[in-house]
Amino acid sequence: MEVYLDNNATTKVDPEVFKAMEPFFCHIYGNPNSLHKFGAGTHPKMIEALNYLYEGINAADEDDIIITGNATESNNTVIKGIWVDKILNGNKNHIITSEVEHPAITATCKFLETQGVSVTYLPVNEEGVLEASSVKDYIREDTALVSIMWANNETGKLFPIKEIGAICKEAGVPFHTDATQAIGKVPVDVQACNVNYLSFSAHKFHGPKGVGGLYVQDGFALTPLLHGGEQMGGHRAGTVDVASMVGMGVAMKLATSPMALAYEENHVRKLRDKLENAILEIPETIVIGGKENRTPNTTLISIRGVEGESMLWDMNQKAIGASTGSACASEDLEANPVMNAFGSDSELAHTGVRFSLSRFNTEEEIDYAIDVIKNAIHRLRNISSSYAYTPKNHVSQL
Amino acid sequence: MEVYLDNNATTKVDPEVFKAMEPFFCHIYGNPNSLHKFGAGTHPKMIEALNYLYEGINAADEDDIIITGNATESNNTVIKGIWVDKILNGNKNHIITSEVEHPAITATCKFLETQGVSVTYLPVNEEGVLEASSVKDYIREDTALVSIMWANNETGKLFPIKEIGAICKEAGVPFHTDATQAIGKVPVDVQACNVNYLSFSAHKFHGPKGVGGLYVQDGFALTPLLHGGEQMGGHRAGTVDVASMVGMGVAMKLATSPMALAYEENHVRKLRDKLENAILEIPETIVIGGKENRTPNTTLISIRGVEGESMLWDMNQKAIGASTGSACASEDLEANPVMNAFGSDSELAHTGVRFSLSRFNTEEEIDYAIDVIKNAIHRLRNISSSYAYTPKNHVSQL
Repeated sequence: MEVYLDNNATTKVDPEVFKAMEPFFCHIYGNPNSLHKFGAGTHPKMIEALNYLYEGINAADEDDIIITGNATESNNTVIKGIWVDKILNGNKNHIITSEVEHPAITATCKFLETQGVSVTYLPVNEEGVLEASSVKDYIREDTALVSIMWANNETGKLFPIKEIGAICKEAGVPFHTDATQAIGKVPVDVQACNVNYLSFSAHKFHGPKGVGGLYVQDGFALTPLLHGGEQMGGHRAGTVDVASMVGMGVAMKLATSPMALAYEENHVRKLRDKLENAILEIPETIVIGGKENRTPNTTLISIRGVEGESMLWDMNQKAIGASTGSACASEDLEANPVMNAFGSDSELAHTGVRFSLSRFNTEEEIDYAIDVIKNAIHRLRNISSSYAYTPKNHVSQL
Repeated sequence: MEVYLDNNATTKVDPEVFKAMEPFFCHIYGNPNSLHKFGAGTHPKMIEALNYLYEGINAADEDDIIITGNATESNNTVIKGIWVDKILNGNKNHIITSEVEHPAITATCKFLETQGVSVTYLPVNEEGVLEASSVKDYIREDTALVSIMWANNETGKLFPIKEIGAICKEAGVPFHTDATQAIGKVPVDVQACNVNYLSFSAHKFHGPKGVGGLYVQDGFALTPLLHGGEQMGGHRAGTVDVASMVGMGVAMKLATSPMALAYEENHVRKLRDKLENAILEIPETIVIGGKENRTPNTTLISIRGVEGESMLWDMNQKAIGASTGSACASEDLEANPVMNAFGSDSELAHTGVRFSLSRFNTEEEIDYAIDVIKNAIHRLRNISSSYAYTPKNHVSQL
């Protein structure tokens, strides 16, 4: 049996999504900007896809959704657009974000710091959540942007987007949220939350890799990151990847319908909880940030005395895929920055394992995974140099 | 019969390319950065694809090829990377390009001009070609980059890349070329031409849309356009679109093998010439820039008295797809900027029709297209208000 529990890193393309994409490779292959039938033939499904995207996040008709290459591009587009328009060519010089954003935000902010921009990285509390009031406290006269993620990629923790949106609106500061880990897991409504910019990525909700979106509220257009042709109303140049755009639209529809979100909230949550509770029966295991207020599919668990990397290898031998944290940062073995931000003791910093489920997981898979994981913890604690063998934590009782 | 003659706008994905991509949607779907088998399972075909890309442009092992979302992103990466590294944070302030670049270059340069950068747009001669000596004449102490396309998208004209590369090398100025319209049509060799940066786009050579490449010579790394995760060695963040990367690699292999280039040079050229010569039999038609020194697949023809747009519509009725110029600029009806740059009289400026063939076109298709095109010219000249009916140009003789 193969069990994929790393859906926050990327997801399987839903076969229905693939079916929608397929005609646009070898058959309806024209450039949508071309005037002839080969080009125009792409339009009906592109329009349909765009409608699904608007519905999925409750964007207003007058707002823009720009098709990008991924959420990283969407995030860079907002932050560097703000840099050019409000900082280089304006009188602002300050950005507020959090300590636990995805690298697409933090690395971009670090770059802006090298260019003289002031950036505030707000800490999270011991539950891994940013407190909305801290945003209010740090807004300055020269704040150009607040950028706070909707849901954390490693813990699944949901941030108080509605409250932050209200604070930013009152202060007159543009508000961006990276909703990459929220779409398809919890309801996302840009209007209800006063969001001005929102990033997402198709491959996190069973769409294809290589395509993402950027919601831009009417009146908040920025200098583009990609200059060139007039695609996307001049806001993002480059031939539109029709197949991927169509796939993203269908994926959005499938992931954000009331039924899909209910399935996530009930069925996926139940499987996640079953897995999590089984691991928590083992002594000295904790859910980082606690169980409250998370996306239904994610758990980040610390297992004292067991290196996260070692767990991955043991599970991999049994065809189970999980993660020690964000795949975007997983080629190095540094301590999980989110766990560091939570203030875990340094002994725990390398012990996190993230399990992230999807609607494609079954109860049978979870039962199999629980067995494998228990055995792995047993084995690894037995050979651990840092984990003392005591009756209290003796895992042979498992 | 359907005849697609707009391959400079985009191409059909080769079925063999699609076959190579297919497993990476619903089956081998892991994130290549993940440590488990779902991630690592993507690596062999990604490495193979990268090898095809290196071979296709003769890149040295120590050089980089960065996978991007399209050539527009590649072009923006170079120009804005130079802006940040050599201009904002260096002592240069000048870029040299040509008047007939793709909008991904010219619009980016226009943006830099708004930021105080000095840009020289070199004109082309009456044959639509940039003279290498003009690059030499305009290089200044503060020149940060020379960016000249390998082949023009509208005329197919080949630019003297080898000579320009030698000039830039001698002057110590980085040299970028947008080779989007050259790959798969003529041999492209970055080492032989002293190219430091080269952009390309898969969908111009029967690969998928939404993926491109940027060659960066060893020692010429720039600040990335997309900050974020450590993908592409930190030079381009964002989850790699495995399916598209694999597709681009196979497309590169298929398009740049000696056999493929020979087919382009012989068979595709023969079809293009047959079409072109048939049109040139009609009075007052000319090949913009002349017949010499072009990619084998392209012809831009001016037909006096006939609006290019009208030709497109007549051809479209008969299921033939062509273009009045770059699809990236085709949503407006402005005069073709390349034709303007060539100094055509204004009456001719709107009369250009571009036919761009591919290895998928057949002689039967070309015969059909010739019939349709001749009839269209006849009809449109007969109803033209600007085209005088004289024995000299009377098209009923056709």
